[in-house]
Amino acid sequence: MYSTFMSATPKIRIDLNSSVPAYRQIVDALRVLFVEGRIRPGDSLPSVRRVALDLGVHFNTVGEAYRQLAQEGWIDLQQGKSAVVRDRGLPPPAPVEQVKQFRARLRAFVAEARASGIAPAKIVEELKSLVQELLP
Amino acid sequence: MYSTFMSATPKIRIDLNSSVPAYRQIVDALRVLFVEGRIRPGDSLPSVRRVALDLGVHFNTVGEAYRQLAQEGWIDLQQGKSAVVRDRGLPPPAPVEQVKQFRARLRAFVAEARASGIAPAKIVEELKSLVQELLP
Repeated sequence: MYSTFMSATPKIRIDLNSSVPAYRQIVDALRVLFVEGRIRPGDSLPSVRRVALDLGVHFNTVGEAYRQLAQEGWIDLQQGKSAVVRDRGLPPPAPVEQVKQFRARLRAFVAEARASGIAPAKIVEELKSLVQELLP
Repeated sequence: MYSTFMSATPKIRIDLNSSVPAYRQIVDALRVLFVEGRIRPGDSLPSVRRVALDLGVHFNTVGEAYRQLAQEGWIDLQQGKSAVVRDRGLPPPAPVEQVKQFRARLRAFVAEARASGIAPAKIVEELKSLVQELLP
């Protein structure tokens, strides 16, 4: 079962049957939009209640997601006002160890996908499309 | 704190300080080796106790990882014998929905890496090297 919110683009979509908690899915989906610049500094996010209604989750779930994003420095939360996307600037460069972890986790993730029957050609397609977007 | 096992290549490496449980890290690392063909059907895995010693984890942790891999069809476990890698054949093709989930999770994963300060150029490098390995 899937839910989407934001009738204006960009939308996010979560899977209510996933083993990944809903708040985590909301955080992940919004982080993608921030990182890819599809939601920009100064933009307002829809209210917690609005998102909760659209996605069919409890508003505490959305609140938790927004708090997590505030903690990560992506948004400003103020009582009674809408959440506003911050200008987070560039993060400090990750230490070498973290890059190694990224490599290991990426490989594990792709291996799991292959083991679950996703065709290598399909995976290559996704990887290449990400490469295209990341190139300056 | 990292641990490795298998003095002969291929080695695996886990992070004892990671928030990812050790058994899960072992499963992920071995799955990569299976999928990439670096451990092949018919190969024996080192004993649970051997791996536990090498990695510095409880042998139950390794046992749990081996059981999970047996459940996924990667290895055969028999009391008193070493775990043997099975010829798993090709998995059935994943349904479209699963491919969509893969896409969303991959994007979330890469966004998280970028947000944590891993340079896009570094990410591109890793993605490209995976593409190279996946191409026939």
